[in-house]
Amino acid sequence: MSDAPTTGRPGGRSNDELRKVTITRGWLDHAEGSVLVEFGKTRVLVAASVTEGVPGWRRGSGLGWVTAEYAMLPRATHTRSARESVKGKIGGRTHEISRLIGRSLRACIDLKALGENTIALDCDVLQADGGTRTAAITGAYVALADAVAWLKDRNALASDNPLPRSVAAISVGIIDGEPRLDLCYEEDSRAETDMNVVVTGEGDFIEVQGTAEGAPYSRSELDALLDVAVKGCADLTVIQRAALEGN
Amino acid sequence: MSDAPTTGRPGGRSNDELRKVTITRGWLDHAEGSVLVEFGKTRVLVAASVTEGVPGWRRGSGLGWVTAEYAMLPRATHTRSARESVKGKIGGRTHEISRLIGRSLRACIDLKALGENTIALDCDVLQADGGTRTAAITGAYVALADAVAWLKDRNALASDNPLPRSVAAISVGIIDGEPRLDLCYEEDSRAETDMNVVVTGEGDFIEVQGTAEGAPYSRSELDALLDVAVKGCADLTVIQRAALEGN
Amino acid sequence: MSDAPTTGRPGGRSNDELRKVTITRGWLDHAEGSVLVEFGKTRVLVAASVTEGVPGWRRGSGLGWVTAEYAMLPRATHTRSARESVKGKIGGRTHEISRLIGRSLRACIDLKALGENTIALDCDVLQADGGTRTAAITGAYVALADAVAWLKDRNALASDNPLPRSVAAISVGIIDGEPRLDLCYEEDSRAETDMNVVVTGEGDFIEVQGTAEGAPYSRSELDALLDVAVKGCADLTVIQRAALEGN
Amino acid sequence: MSDAPTTGRPGGRSNDELRKVTITRGWLDHAEGSVLVEFGKTRVLVAASVTEGVPGWRRGSGLGWVTAEYAMLPRATHTRSARESVKGKIGGRTHEISRLIGRSLRACIDLKALGENTIALDCDVLQADGGTRTAAITGAYVALADAVAWLKDRNALASDNPLPRSVAAISVGIIDGEPRLDLCYEEDSRAETDMNVVVTGEGDFIEVQGTAEGAPYSRSELDALLDVAVKGCADLTVIQRAALEGN
Amino acid sequence: MSDAPTTGRPGGRSNDELRKVTITRGWLDHAEGSVLVEFGKTRVLVAASVTEGVPGWRRGSGLGWVTAEYAMLPRATHTRSARESVKGKIGGRTHEISRLIGRSLRACIDLKALGENTIALDCDVLQADGGTRTAAITGAYVALADAVAWLKDRNALASDNPLPRSVAAISVGIIDGEPRLDLCYEEDSRAETDMNVVVTGEGDFIEVQGTAEGAPYSRSELDALLDVAVKGCADLTVIQRAALEGN
Amino acid sequence: MSDAPTTGRPGGRSNDELRKVTITRGWLDHAEGSVLVEFGKTRVLVAASVTEGVPGWRRGSGLGWVTAEYAMLPRATHTRSARESVKGKIGGRTHEISRLIGRSLRACIDLKALGENTIALDCDVLQADGGTRTAAITGAYVALADAVAWLKDRNALASDNPLPRSVAAISVGIIDGEPRLDLCYEEDSRAETDMNVVVTGEGDFIEVQGTAEGAPYSRSELDALLDVAVKGCADLTVIQRAALEGN
Repeated sequence: MSDAPTTGRPGGRSNDELRKVTITRGWLDHAEGSVLVEFGKTRVLVAASVTEGVPGWRRGSGLGWVTAEYAMLPRATHTRSARESVKGKIGGRTHEISRLIGRSLRACIDLKALGENTIALDCDVLQADGGTRTAAITGAYVALADAVAWLKDRNALASDNPLPRSVAAISVGIIDGEPRLDLCYEEDSRAETDMNVVVTGEGDFIEVQGTAEGAPYSRSELDALLDVAVKGCADLTVIQRAALEGN
Repeated sequence: MSDAPTTGRPGGRSNDELRKVTITRGWLDHAEGSVLVEFGKTRVLVAASVTEGVPGWRRGSGLGWVTAEYAMLPRATHTRSARESVKGKIGGRTHEISRLIGRSLRACIDLKALGENTIALDCDVLQADGGTRTAAITGAYVALADAVAWLKDRNALASDNPLPRSVAAISVGIIDGEPRLDLCYEEDSRAETDMNVVVTGEGDFIEVQGTAEGAPYSRSELDALLDVAVKGCADLTVIQRAALEGN
Repeated sequence: MSDAPTTGRPGGRSNDELRKVTITRGWLDHAEGSVLVEFGKTRVLVAASVTEGVPGWRRGSGLGWVTAEYAMLPRATHTRSARESVKGKIGGRTHEISRLIGRSLRACIDLKALGENTIALDCDVLQADGGTRTAAITGAYVALADAVAWLKDRNALASDNPLPRSVAAISVGIIDGEPRLDLCYEEDSRAETDMNVVVTGEGDFIEVQGTAEGAPYSRSELDALLDVAVKGCADLTVIQRAALEGN
Repeated sequence: MSDAPTTGRPGGRSNDELRKVTITRGWLDHAEGSVLVEFGKTRVLVAASVTEGVPGWRRGSGLGWVTAEYAMLPRATHTRSARESVKGKIGGRTHEISRLIGRSLRACIDLKALGENTIALDCDVLQADGGTRTAAITGAYVALADAVAWLKDRNALASDNPLPRSVAAISVGIIDGEPRLDLCYEEDSRAETDMNVVVTGEGDFIEVQGTAEGAPYSRSELDALLDVAVKGCADLTVIQRAALEGN
Repeated sequence: MSDAPTTGRPGGRSNDELRKVTITRGWLDHAEGSVLVEFGKTRVLVAASVTEGVPGWRRGSGLGWVTAEYAMLPRATHTRSARESVKGKIGGRTHEISRLIGRSLRACIDLKALGENTIALDCDVLQADGGTRTAAITGAYVALADAVAWLKDRNALASDNPLPRSVAAISVGIIDGEPRLDLCYEEDSRAETDMNVVVTGEGDFIEVQGTAEGAPYSRSELDALLDVAVKGCADLTVIQRAALEGN
Repeated sequence: MSDAPTTGRPGGRSNDELRKVTITRGWLDHAEGSVLVEFGKTRVLVAASVTEGVPGWRRGSGLGWVTAEYAMLPRATHTRSARESVKGKIGGRTHEISRLIGRSLRACIDLKALGENTIALDCDVLQADGGTRTAAITGAYVALADAVAWLKDRNALASDNPLPRSVAAISVGIIDGEPRLDLCYEEDSRAETDMNVVVTGEGDFIEVQGTAEGAPYSRSELDALLDVAVKGCADLTVIQRAALEGN
């Protein structure tokens, strides 16, 4: 499926190959859209909740709103973490990822066509093995599409096509000097540079976040990471489309 | 399977019949014990996390500790609820149920035999349709048994049999004047009296919590509810045993 | 007064005998109803505060509302506890008891007859020696009755008799294999099983909460505890009535 | 008792006359010192709790520590206030008064003689009718003296006389152009200037806090207020001494 | 400039001499009034923010509102302090000072003339070397005057002269038995008695807060402190006036 | 200085031109390093605080630690914002920026050479006009360098050169289809794409964060933005060097 050189990656993947990705629609009975999305052992449950109306600050604007919250179950990880509800506050990482997901999904929806409806995307990580935020975005797009269809069925949209583009996200990183796609936890913790890229179905960028964990990275390394990421998002777009057509 | 009169219950159950109960062990890869427990549409993910040592206040006592936390995903319910982590505090209901689960599981474990180990039971409701706390307790027993087996495999127990008894829980209620077993949400919201009962595998009581939602209830109504609850817990004990033997 | 066998209880009480119970009405000058209730050394100050109107979620319903908050002064207990206001959050036990008191009092009031008025019951434990929640409920009924009378004097009720029944509560427990009524702190901490029972003046149940602290308890033990509790609540009903007539 | 001109004060007091002041020692059974102090309808329960040792930051210094917390029950006032524990934070006024009480009592104790013991003074206002902070300080001195005596009985002091001076506090204010002593709530809310003064048994100052509520006040008004306050504290000192000898 | 005896004060000041005081108006570009006020090394940035309207509880009264918030940057002090935003709560000292500043500024404004406008005074200590609260009040008066002028320019006042008096504040203390004006941090931490005095341009008192840090202080010491404070505030009034005219 | 086409930018800058940048060292008297950094009207005060030792989790590792906190004064912005300390929690944006600054500065320091010392970088925005996070990073590098020099003077470093590289940051964006450097607030709010780039003195990347505010951006737009950003950071590096040599 790929002609990139196969190095010693966990699971024997080639450098530009995704883990096994599964998107299960309708995993919940109550939510207007819901998806269990799996990137290898990473498992995120996304629920899209529709409510009529928008927050006070944009009432009367004719525009809808999309918001997202990301969280992790305490034992999603290798060792148990304390609950943020018990600690009484949300950590910086949680905040940051929730904001990223919200921005990414708002970038693929036409809020005018949505009309004054709000869609909340709850992304709860049931199990974490690297790439939870990118799995969340990729799954949230499908849940959002189902929630939009639910509104359409009820003639509750302001106009017909509020989702002019799709969105998918993937993590990439440099390990042992080579760019790799879709890092699992073990790889992620060894990466010299770590980048999350959010890309539309057409291959344009919505968000690029790249961090040097070890040494700073050069422009050519940055370019190589972007190449791999765009390729991976194209693969995810195919999987999303199949899930949505699979009814 | 039951000769109780079949009234018009959702799903056509008889009054003393459980919903379809499923217990899936090993649903998570990292946790020392884990279970996805389903009572009809109610779905609770239970993770048992083992840590060596005990909280400071019981260090050096030779006794172990078992604790539990209960929570609900925002869209587990028919309409979305705000996250307790976002609100910055845990509600009274959550606290109350977490404490109930902890007490119930501590009542079935020999903390001396457990040795100075701590087992945390995280019960996260993925979908709610009535009976979430009783499903949580019933599933938590199985996750706890797996965590204890994990400790046994590592020779980390103080003595051999830290689980002298099993525990299961069920809700019962009076609806239209009749006692019913295992209420789903629709029944629960109509119940005149609502009782949660926690019972050992031998049929003794660990906890009884009965609340008049409408009119106060008589002693004979209380007796009838207890009869049905004990019967239901016996059925759950059979299911638990099968799950644990099913390896 | 009782023919139950007298064992070695603190104060030489028989097993089904209450501690000395005192209900002092009008302990506060500002509150619409107020009571200092004493069960032996346990002392709870209950204030009933009337406000016109109801919370937003039930406005226009024609129904009133009764709510309760329970708290303990830091030095009510043998050793000082930190204040919940200083800790910045309310503990699970406080939440749980506040909810129990609220439910119990709502079960004895006709919210339609109350009209759109709210009564808040503040139950502050000045000194604790076991049975604080049951003393609170028993006293709160009297404070509530005074607050209702205050509304009646001002013609502010929707109809005449909003208190069709009275309510009282008592703790019972098994100690040395015998059921005992109204446990003081020393007994409470030794009890194998601990039960709080809320009963109407007619002897029907509003709430039953029984917990195995040590070994699980059998159905016959449960029955014996309920018998003693119903007897004790009947005694409390007499004391409540005397207090209310004592004007 | 006083030759100051009698104006129309509530209760017919003269301008430099205290309300009826009562100090009841030993109001609680568990606390090492406790007092119910009443200034007219204002009623404050003070509990002094002794613990061995001092907070970490002064361990090994040979010095003791005295701390204070002030709070009000929700229905101490004419209309109910929300609990600070429920709001999840302590208000500025509460903080400010707690700090004032702590400073005032530390000013009358020899922390070296106290040795490495901590005394916590909990001042809970059961009913408020003006002057709650001054009643709290005045009562706290007596509860502190009892707690010190309790330590002395157990030979737990570092040296013999840790209370070289007594402390009392009173509010004064200008109403209708005249200085008045010990304002009740009705007067307090009409005062143009409001001052709380903390004075030793010898008549020296520990704290002076004077606030213009309406127009700024002149030096001669300030002097007149201080005169009345010193007189009032002298009267309180007599009452404190009688209470402590009254045992 | 002063004939008080020159003792060994830091900087060689005489006992009744201010540190170098600088008031820089218009330090910020956005705020309706802003001042960087310096008392020696103490540097406070005051921003006055005008908003139309008043808080709900005084809407329709025709009266304006002035409020203040005081805070310190983490490294304003000699060693870094934790941020109150990170700790999640405001300390007692911060609350107390914010309330003092608010009261002091409300005492110099005619809220009726202000009309239904709100002015928020943010006093942020950039560097602390003693006297931060008195510098804040002194600077806040100037920022408030600028904000009032801003409103006047827009014809947004209810009547013409909402600032009938000016206000300034200074700290005084007894060190080595002598009253000193405007303590720097080093002096403040050695003071036996510490007093903050808020005085109008006419020399009347708005607030007096005097605390015995060591031994109680006599009436004559109190009088001497007040004399020095009134002198210092008169000097500050001259500096304020010059700053306001300096435009 | 630049041959990029001059469009109608505020202040008449060319597209790849910085605003006037000023770095004032030693703005505070107590901090081990401090800088007032200005990018046009944006003014950030950075204080570097050195403490001996490291947080518990890395004690004994031989490695130092660098941490950062970002905050904004309430009236830094055009309209006043509520204080996070008063709200009782830190917002997502604040968390996110604090984390970015910390990561960026850790990427330019050799934590082994730093030895077990901690440097906290407090970045407080006194006035905001776009680019506050990039100004903070750029200034924090200089304050960090001064704090490192302070440690060196005291022979407290583990080895000689803990700052092998410098770091600077700048914002870039696409406005009217053209890439622009160092956006002020007015431009920032109009930008279609907004990117913050953190670059070393050698021109390598530490962090790239690019967000489509409007339409997704193409690879060639991304490349153009990176080109401008690298150029701007090179200009900032010159200014930093001059400031550090300017001693």
